[in-house]
Amino acid sequence: MFSELHPEADPATLDAADPLASFRSEFAHDTEDLIYLDGNSLGRPPRAVLDAVRRVTDEEWTNRLIRGWDEWIELPSRAGDALAADVVGARPGEVLVCDSTSVNLYKLAAAALDAAPKGRRVIVTDDDNFPTDRYILAGIAERHGGELRVIHTDIDEGVDPKTVAKAVKKDTALLCLSHVSYRSGAIADMAAITERAHKSGAKVLWDLCHSAGAVPVELDACGVDLAVGCTYKYLNAGPGAPAFLYVREELQTRLRQPMWGWFSQTDQFAMGPEYLPREDIGRFAVGTPTVVGVAAVEAAVAVTARAGVAALREKSVRLGAYAQALFAEWLAPLGFELASPDDPLRRGGHLTLAHKEAWRIGQAMRARGVIPDYREPDRLRLGFAPLYNGYRDVHEGLSRVADIVRSGEYEKFPAEKGQVT
Amino acid sequence: MFSELHPEADPATLDAADPLASFRSEFAHDTEDLIYLDGNSLGRPPRAVLDAVRRVTDEEWTNRLIRGWDEWIELPSRAGDALAADVVGARPGEVLVCDSTSVNLYKLAAAALDAAPKGRRVIVTDDDNFPTDRYILAGIAERHGGELRVIHTDIDEGVDPKTVAKAVKKDTALLCLSHVSYRSGAIADMAAITERAHKSGAKVLWDLCHSAGAVPVELDACGVDLAVGCTYKYLNAGPGAPAFLYVREELQTRLRQPMWGWFSQTDQFAMGPEYLPREDIGRFAVGTPTVVGVAAVEAAVAVTARAGVAALREKSVRLGAYAQALFAEWLAPLGFELASPDDPLRRGGHLTLAHKEAWRIGQAMRARGVIPDYREPDRLRLGFAPLYNGYRDVHEGLSRVADIVRSGEYEKFPAEKGQVT
Repeated sequence: MFSELHPEADPATLDAADPLASFRSEFAHDTEDLIYLDGNSLGRPPRAVLDAVRRVTDEEWTNRLIRGWDEWIELPSRAGDALAADVVGARPGEVLVCDSTSVNLYKLAAAALDAAPKGRRVIVTDDDNFPTDRYILAGIAERHGGELRVIHTDIDEGVDPKTVAKAVKKDTALLCLSHVSYRSGAIADMAAITERAHKSGAKVLWDLCHSAGAVPVELDACGVDLAVGCTYKYLNAGPGAPAFLYVREELQTRLRQPMWGWFSQTDQFAMGPEYLPREDIGRFAVGTPTVVGVAAVEAAVAVTARAGVAALREKSVRLGAYAQALFAEWLAPLGFELASPDDPLRRGGHLTLAHKEAWRIGQAMRARGVIPDYREPDRLRLGFAPLYNGYRDVHEGLSRVADIVRSGEYEKFPAEKGQVT
Repeated sequence: MFSELHPEADPATLDAADPLASFRSEFAHDTEDLIYLDGNSLGRPPRAVLDAVRRVTDEEWTNRLIRGWDEWIELPSRAGDALAADVVGARPGEVLVCDSTSVNLYKLAAAALDAAPKGRRVIVTDDDNFPTDRYILAGIAERHGGELRVIHTDIDEGVDPKTVAKAVKKDTALLCLSHVSYRSGAIADMAAITERAHKSGAKVLWDLCHSAGAVPVELDACGVDLAVGCTYKYLNAGPGAPAFLYVREELQTRLRQPMWGWFSQTDQFAMGPEYLPREDIGRFAVGTPTVVGVAAVEAAVAVTARAGVAALREKSVRLGAYAQALFAEWLAPLGFELASPDDPLRRGGHLTLAHKEAWRIGQAMRARGVIPDYREPDRLRLGFAPLYNGYRDVHEGLSRVADIVRSGEYEKFPAEKGQVT
């Protein structure tokens, strides 16, 4: 499958054969020279998203004013339905675009713990899960009579299904894991882990932040109960664009989230005395949605949908395999180590490299117009976003990294860590 | 003070003498003919806000990409400081722009209940408080071992300080009220009520949704503990723009909000194993802020700051008094009743009229290019936003209402209620 992706391959030839190559021109950018390898953190702006934002501000808000709500009121569920159909493998009415990932995780995990039988007070997660997941779950456990069981995960290889299976027991209310590890990019086996947790009677909540738009997700087919995810990485909806949540249809009326906001109220504008939560996915809304943000998500999902997640995944795997070949040839001899699974099919959209000088190398890369991100303790994440990254980005980006290390150029940068984002 | 604001006064003359008249031209609008009297629900777009949104999307996101976070990370507290100084009378570091009003109310009210002594489990609010406040507080009470005590408020006159005083006792953890009633526009006496509640040892949380940008707010001077508010009404930051929260400096480290998201973590990007909440206002953040939204708030606050809340209030009171004079002359004889305090100084930025045909009249008004909003049971709210509404809006708007009722034009519209926003 990857035999042509060798270090001597001509990136221009590879780009010419790329069936998704035309999508690159749909993205706004400053300069072609910048090698942007951080779409795993913040995706580039599709022009369609910029247009959607402008449509909301300069037309809908300006001209329709309050009457805009006649349509905006449906936006969070409409954008959710698009995400459901085109990105995460869910049915209409199972996904809602709202709030941040952290807030959504709180709502769903707290609701799941509340709804669990008395003997099930444990939430299981792993120590390599994204920090906000671990913190939010710890808060829920402490505050809502639960207990957090944190299993150990190898930070290069990702979550181990056997360790998970052992930890999820009759006392477990909820298992919460990331589908794709934020650090290593390792993909967890959603189907097998969900099935195993269900055998123990636990509910399962997947964090899709690093998988939505990057790898195929089949929530319904995997029997997943709950999920949350963000839209500003591979979905390219913009900095801090609203997140999404998924609740399997059969579970919706059995769960009650802790923030009884008016957007989750039946007959919201009757403004009645009692809180009567809606009986659909709107039950998991809270306050007024950011209209600009949700419209951006809707437009962003449409771009991904046109490319198709299957095609995006195929290209993403190829970009990763090509990067891995270049790493082996150029970077391994310079002290870099692979900090991701060796098999490209076991990785999401990014490849992580460890190097004892990672912090300084990352700064030197930025100065040379290659944008990665740094993660503790000594990792550089290189994200390959198949909508706009090509083989030339991979080749040129890794070539500059090799230069920076070979030449000692990185030594000019401070070793002391500044702000990391 | 209002003697010149009589029904025969010439609105053009009044507009000509308006010191804030020039602000109207800073707002984007479709047509001068539209009489927009719903700024109490969704403000019109200042061009400066449209520009700020475009700057974030088309410049910062497009060109700086992930590096935009070097500055964006400070945006929620920077916009909060501007709100603190120019709108709500607070010190730097006491206000944060984040999430929705409902989510912020949940965070602060839950934190206050958690921090209260054991014998204080009651949250006091009133039955005329905005629905999301009542629902959120009911959820907190039910889920966190509290009790909600709902006092009765006259829906035309606003909250009665004596009733509040009686309800806030030694068992009370928190009093939560709206500063300006969403329905009647009645202003509550923040200073007196806060002082009285403090004498009982309760903390006080004010909802500023209908006061921020419309009436002077002096949180610090009134000794207020906690507050939340929205930015899309009189502050004009756009549909669903992020809300704000205020926590008095001395209280910040004594409170711990329930959603332990990574944006509230000390040394956030170290991504360490334990949750260690920040010791400043950032402690009350949760997830990734909507950058576009927060930038819109910052730009919107700057417009309000240039006009000055005192000047805005003066004009707002005058617009309301003028409307009241026209109401008495034209509308009272047509079956309208005042559903707001009679004294213009006791009202916020809107005037509420009751009429048994309010629903149909509201529809007829929209059809005639006058935009109010409808609220149960039979009310039309007329909002006068002093940044862009003038005396001509009031005169022409109320004149059209009188026409609609006199001519029976409203009878063409369905009595059955459709969507209300």
